[in-house]
Amino acid sequence: MSSSKQGTEALNFSGGLACPIPISDYPHVLLAHGGGGKLSQQLIQKMIVSQFRNDLLEPLHDGAIFSQNGTRFAFSTDSYVVNPIFFPGGDIGELAVNGTVNDLAMCGAKPLYLSAAFIIEEGFPMDDLWRVIVSMQDAATRSGVMLVTGDTKVVDRGKGDKIFINTSGIGVIPEGIQIGSRNARVGDKIIISGSIAVHGIAIMSVREGLEFESPIESDTAPLNGLVEVMLQASKNIHVLRDPTRGGVASALNEIAESSKVGIRIDASAIPLTEPVRGACEILGLDPLYVANEGKLIAFVPADDAERVLGAMCEHPLGRESRILGEVVPEHVGTVVMRTSIGGSRVVDMLSGEQLPRIC
Amino acid sequence: MSSSKQGTEALNFSGGLACPIPISDYPHVLLAHGGGGKLSQQLIQKMIVSQFRNDLLEPLHDGAIFSQNGTRFAFSTDSYVVNPIFFPGGDIGELAVNGTVNDLAMCGAKPLYLSAAFIIEEGFPMDDLWRVIVSMQDAATRSGVMLVTGDTKVVDRGKGDKIFINTSGIGVIPEGIQIGSRNARVGDKIIISGSIAVHGIAIMSVREGLEFESPIESDTAPLNGLVEVMLQASKNIHVLRDPTRGGVASALNEIAESSKVGIRIDASAIPLTEPVRGACEILGLDPLYVANEGKLIAFVPADDAERVLGAMCEHPLGRESRILGEVVPEHVGTVVMRTSIGGSRVVDMLSGEQLPRIC
Repeated sequence: MSSSKQGTEALNFSGGLACPIPISDYPHVLLAHGGGGKLSQQLIQKMIVSQFRNDLLEPLHDGAIFSQNGTRFAFSTDSYVVNPIFFPGGDIGELAVNGTVNDLAMCGAKPLYLSAAFIIEEGFPMDDLWRVIVSMQDAATRSGVMLVTGDTKVVDRGKGDKIFINTSGIGVIPEGIQIGSRNARVGDKIIISGSIAVHGIAIMSVREGLEFESPIESDTAPLNGLVEVMLQASKNIHVLRDPTRGGVASALNEIAESSKVGIRIDASAIPLTEPVRGACEILGLDPLYVANEGKLIAFVPADDAERVLGAMCEHPLGRESRILGEVVPEHVGTVVMRTSIGGSRVVDMLSGEQLPRIC
Repeated sequence: MSSSKQGTEALNFSGGLACPIPISDYPHVLLAHGGGGKLSQQLIQKMIVSQFRNDLLEPLHDGAIFSQNGTRFAFSTDSYVVNPIFFPGGDIGELAVNGTVNDLAMCGAKPLYLSAAFIIEEGFPMDDLWRVIVSMQDAATRSGVMLVTGDTKVVDRGKGDKIFINTSGIGVIPEGIQIGSRNARVGDKIIISGSIAVHGIAIMSVREGLEFESPIESDTAPLNGLVEVMLQASKNIHVLRDPTRGGVASALNEIAESSKVGIRIDASAIPLTEPVRGACEILGLDPLYVANEGKLIAFVPADDAERVLGAMCEHPLGRESRILGEVVPEHVGTVVMRTSIGGSRVVDMLSGEQLPRIC
């Protein structure tokens, strides 16, 4: 025996720490545990963060930040399980590269290196694999990162679904930048970089067989270039977030909670194209909860907001940027929306699943 | 349209670069493409390395190495799809942490930070998830790394298999260390840290329902501590490799090829326990091709070999270390084994699949 452990020990786990999510409530993992809403947050907080607890693990941010010899690095990981893997405006490969590039950019980092790990289902067409790989390299070139290490696993037919891709990434954070989900401050203006809900609707339209005059295409795009011009305009940006799973509503709720502030947004300021609005109505989806893959939200001190907004509007990926709302001292931890008829309502965290396997 | 691409463009891929693996030979991905042998190597080389080509991507090493402000880092990724997820001597969580720790250690790096990304099948028991998470944290503590960032996705029932885990890791390479799969030199002694084929047989025994007097337990273990004492004994170690998928034979073949040298090993020097030998016979497996998860192979200049070997034998994970063979100027790119009856035979790369989903 080269291992000192007893074989039975591994099988006697139940004598250890009790599972922090009551088994009576959730005996099994549900799709909603991966949906980006309340159940996801509960799973991550109670099971993973509580167990892995350390100073660097900031659960609701997009990446961890660590220092080495005076340089600050961002480190991030995401697995992509989107279905279908090819969709209008992109594919799982492009999404996997852009997604991790964006997670690094949301830490204020310049993304440098990515890993790519594939879990492929036996029988996956070789041509489709090639198409995904070429797409990843194209996306890497576009965002200026290098794919430097990888892994390939194959699982038996029926034990996976075509292809899953994990990308992890490393970036360097320039001096003077302090961006984090806990940093929103009362008075901050909240800027959004363009129209929302596009990626989620692109995926759902394909799944549901909706036909449009012109297809709604995913907004998947690398946001590091946009972040660069924003940081040139102001080093005082407090929070950056790309509202993916769970959409704008979930992202804002997470920030309100992490920063212990209130958030007020204007319904009339939410950028939404007509085709996406129409598709949301047909599908019964609230666009505030639908995933984006090429948009960001920034929390910026009021004094710098116009300068940052101006820089964003000059960038191809930020032309439609606008101020969505602001940070307020009232209703701490809560997002409130002023509706178009003058009332206001709480915009809650997504509860349960809305769109599984959207990214 | 927020994207400038045409919807049809993504669907017209076949007009682009042709797939470098002839579709007539392999129209679909096979299990063997993930088995760690010839087909895996072909897939990685022809499709991934050819496309992602850059200076840092060293395909047959365990991680990429990059420099930032004078510090050298190792960066590595692996997805774990082992079946069953709980096995004698360990589980998928422990394996996922140790595996990436080891990949970093095989670059000569001190592992620092790990990410953990879960792909969970809907319906996976919450208690099993908790058990895996606790096991990961225990493994992280044991090897001195921090789990700093993560991701959780859930896929519909029947589209995954219980749980897949990706870990990526970052480590720092001390000054003066130059370890890489291209660095083997004629005259190097090849040291192995203990008995082989244990992990693979532990998994296969469970799958095949083999019963032993005492169960064969996986050797999964973090090797960074062992590497540390080896590097204290000599900074001149040329190559380190943990022979996982594809076993010792595939690892040696990859090194012979990368370093453009011949490798000679002695059959009588291969450390193998009686239970593992017996199980290999029953299962019809050649132990040279069976995966290890807590063993390493080191290529060390002859002058330093005894010193390194001595240090290894004093470490709990290296007590059974011994010299397995040496690097020779003949038969470049090939591994030759002297058999116990005085003959010699070529030890080829694993071709096709032997043990799918072993890690």
